Amino acid sequence: MVELQDLESRLGERLIRDPELVAPYARDSSRAEPEGQPLAVVLARDTEDVAAALAWATEHRVPVSVRGAGTGLAGGANAYPDGVVISLANMTEVLQLDVANRTATVQAGVITAELDALARESGLFFPPDPASARTCTVGGNIATNAGGLRCVAHGVTNDSIAALVVVLADGRIMRTGARTRKNVVGYDLTSLFVGSEGTLGVITEATVRLKPVPPGTPRTFRASFTTLEEAGAAVTAIVNGPAQPEVLELMDAFSVEIIESFQPSGLTVPAGAMLVGQTVGLDAAAKAETITAICRAEGATDTEISESDSLLEARRLSNPALNARGLKISCDVGVPVAALSEVFQGVAALAARHGKRVSTVAHAGDGNLHCTVESPDSVAGIAEADALIDDITKLAISLGGTISGEHGIGSVKRHELPWQLDDAALDVQRAIKAALDPHGILTPERGI
Amino acid sequence: MVELQDLESRLGERLIRDPELVAPYARDSSRAEPEGQPLAVVLARDTEDVAAALAWATEHRVPVSVRGAGTGLAGGANAYPDGVVISLANMTEVLQLDVANRTATVQAGVITAELDALARESGLFFPPDPASARTCTVGGNIATNAGGLRCVAHGVTNDSIAALVVVLADGRIMRTGARTRKNVVGYDLTSLFVGSEGTLGVITEATVRLKPVPPGTPRTFRASFTTLEEAGAAVTAIVNGPAQPEVLELMDAFSVEIIESFQPSGLTVPAGAMLVGQTVGLDAAAKAETITAICRAEGATDTEISESDSLLEARRLSNPALNARGLKISCDVGVPVAALSEVFQGVAALAARHGKRVSTVAHAGDGNLHCTVESPDSVAGIAEADALIDDITKLAISLGGTISGEHGIGSVKRHELPWQLDDAALDVQRAIKAALDPHGILTPERGI
Ligand SMILES: Cc1cc2nc3c(=O)[nH]c(=O)nc-3n(C[C@H](O)[C@H](O)[C@H](O)COP(=O)(O)OP(=O)(O)OC[C@H]3O[C@@H](n4cnc5c(N)ncnc54)[C@H](O)[C@@H]3O)c2cc1C
Ligand SMILES: Cc1cc2nc3c(=O)[nH]c(=O)nc-3n(C[C@H](O)[C@H](O)[C@H](O)COP(=O)(O)OP(=O)(O)OC[C@H]3O[C@@H](n4cnc5c(N)ncnc54)[C@H](O)[C@@H]3O)c2cc1C
Repeated sequence: MVELQDLESRLGERLIRDPELVAPYARDSSRAEPEGQPLAVVLARDTEDVAAALAWATEHRVPVSVRGAGTGLAGGANAYPDGVVISLANMTEVLQLDVANRTATVQAGVITAELDALARESGLFFPPDPASARTCTVGGNIATNAGGLRCVAHGVTNDSIAALVVVLADGRIMRTGARTRKNVVGYDLTSLFVGSEGTLGVITEATVRLKPVPPGTPRTFRASFTTLEEAGAAVTAIVNGPAQPEVLELMDAFSVEIIESFQPSGLTVPAGAMLVGQTVGLDAAAKAETITAICRAEGATDTEISESDSLLEARRLSNPALNARGLKISCDVGVPVAALSEVFQGVAALAARHGKRVSTVAHAGDGNLHCTVESPDSVAGIAEADALIDDITKLAISLGGTISGEHGIGSVKRHELPWQLDDAALDVQRAIKAALDPHGILTPERGI
Repeated sequence: MVELQDLESRLGERLIRDPELVAPYARDSSRAEPEGQPLAVVLARDTEDVAAALAWATEHRVPVSVRGAGTGLAGGANAYPDGVVISLANMTEVLQLDVANRTATVQAGVITAELDALARESGLFFPPDPASARTCTVGGNIATNAGGLRCVAHGVTNDSIAALVVVLADGRIMRTGARTRKNVVGYDLTSLFVGSEGTLGVITEATVRLKPVPPGTPRTFRASFTTLEEAGAAVTAIVNGPAQPEVLELMDAFSVEIIESFQPSGLTVPAGAMLVGQTVGLDAAAKAETITAICRAEGATDTEISESDSLLEARRLSNPALNARGLKISCDVGVPVAALSEVFQGVAALAARHGKRVSTVAHAGDGNLHCTVESPDSVAGIAEADALIDDITKLAISLGGTISGEHGIGSVKRHELPWQLDDAALDVQRAIKAALDPHGILTPERGI
């Protein structure tokens, strides 16, 4: 493509064309296969590089995919054949840490855990903590409105974002939001871009809100249950109880088995399911006692409180452990938290009906479930697993739930959109997309 | 207007045409004068009434204003000459209170304080609490992304909204959001409508998030300072300190004087300013002690802790008290909280330069200031006050602030938009407006 030379002369070595160097940018961490190889990768250094690339792509109508670290699980960052990838991976500068106002301004490619570590040096922390925090980017978290382990206490990524710098499809640079806590000035463009999965613009900088690290030593807790339903009922009781956890996760027996065989940490596989979580603050120990007491009242056979992080570390391994077993067809559904028991019952019934084994891990305190289906890695096996995931997703919706709690739609869940959104909402989404990206060059045919 | 009969035959007595009955719906509580009298008011009973009215208005290109209780301070609900007012005031049904999931689903016209009172019967509360809570509507709170006294602890209205039913300009009914805590399914249309000030659609129902009432007896506290700057510095220290308040408000000496002469409650007028606030939880008393100790360390001459609500009640009277004095030219600017001292200094300097007296009350913990200018109620006097408010607003922006923390833009602040938003952001706002309301019938020429 001859026009690429224009861009190359602007970007120099920051435009990569060597197919071998380009290949690693072709896909994310989802099961979605890339549709082809991109022409080139822009390794942007700053907002102006991104602006140049998008102005060029609009001029030449070249499809663009946007990529942070590629840990996404929805296919959103996969490259387009003959498209260009804009990578934020080299935009890793922390531009400002404002301790008195508890904000940080960062380039989009900063690694989530690195921002968190930097904030902790000043007694603050960055609330979003997807299990991928050590590799994913803040920009990717914003673009997917990522969840993670601490949402039950601190909400989703959107709750931590104050302001953005965004490059629009035509290359114009826009600022959204404000550094203030409150701001009602036109439409909330910050929230519009949070979760927009690379379809409306490229986020190049963000001002994020930090929180003070609670004093005292955190406690982790575990409670094992004979059935998933009991564990679900315990979660509902905990979140409505007097002691609020910082983390409240669930792993069913099959998941614990898979994680332990991937990297043993001495966890005993429960008969039904296990809750693991964390409490913080000067009263962390007392809160952990209250929570484990609730668990026992709800039928837990065995509980444990500790100062070690290993219980949560095991939970964080679930995604790699499932992958290592070749289990990859999964969902990210959410239900209102009081419906957890019911959804677990329903998933068991569906698994039995489909004749499949399902591993369930959950950000239980938020009602957000990842069910992964064990199925042969063949065309038929994948189709069977997909059919079960579809049924689980419809079940979640029937309980007042959502098709995606935290991973987003990308290409993987696009067929599910009309199950949740009515025609008017779909139309409005498309009208916004068309208004902001009239030529449809930005992450086309994905997200919405 | 002959076409009005179509709508009348659909709505019957819910369409009001008698000019005397229509007149009370012509204006909100701002200083903005309505541009003329509307043709009619639709006293909607349900979402379908609103849909019928908007389909009709789109067909006949009639401008529509949307009205909750008309307590708005930006002119957003003022009627259009020969327009129609859609009033939500009669849509006051609580459709569901879901205690286990801590949500309530309400019609838009439910009064904020009534929803709160209902939730409290089940040990829950509705976090948004503008000082107008006893009269304003939940729909109005959502449409303005209202703030209030508890934002320092619980965020703004948007943080409490899970899902909406919205009628679009053409009469189509759309559902946004989900009942789950996490939901990444297309663009965040809920947040887009929160703060949209009646310009994108009419909110007819909302599912809101409730929080558990903290145990124990709340404490209120007061600290009086010799200067506004000291009080500002104390606020920065408090919000970065170990004890978080539920409410943290500021009144300068002039405001306390005005409130006391409007309705005396025995408050001593401070030399400079007074902080009043509240702590909650089992450790409310200890937290109030910690906070007042910080205040004394920052120079407070006098502090007080009590179990009575009268300190906050006095603060809630500031708006009516200022009105009763004929003081109405004010702003709603915000700054990052660590800039409070600096903005107070700047306001004093500007007031001196303009030769005016300014009353300042602030949702101090959020850095959100309402400065009101004392000026003769004449054309010249108003112009002078406006000029000072413009300068204060520009000062706030120069400190990284915002032109509106909680009241919105309406018609009153529209000229200020380009001071804060760049051209790209203004364009994107207008593109979204055009995409959703192509004929511009909904609250035209306001908000953005
Ligand atoms: C082991 C593992 C554990 C995980 N755990 C969690 C978890 O607990 N919670 C959770 O929510 N997710 C989790 N994820 C998913 C993933 O890590 C998150 O979605 C993360 O936010 C993606 O960040 P990224 O930088 O890798 O983005 P990418 O994968 O590169 O991109 C993700 C999407 O965002 C878009 N995008 C990326 N950067 C930008 C930008 N700057 N501007 C505009 N669009 C952009 C892309 O186009 C794409 O659509 C996990 C993934 C793995 C592999
Ligand atoms: C004494 C007093 C104290 C106040 N204190 C505070 C405070 O502490 N914090 C604060 O934030 N505000 C405060 N306000 C301002 C005002 O109360 C809030 O803006 C409130 O949210 C408005 O609610 P309302 O029902 O009166 O809306 P209205 O005034 O009727 O309308 C406000 C705006 O919202 C739009 N709107 C209303 N309902 C809908 C709907 N259902 N769908 C779509 N658009 C709609 C209108 O078109 C208009 O643009 C105060 C006002 C007064 C008079």
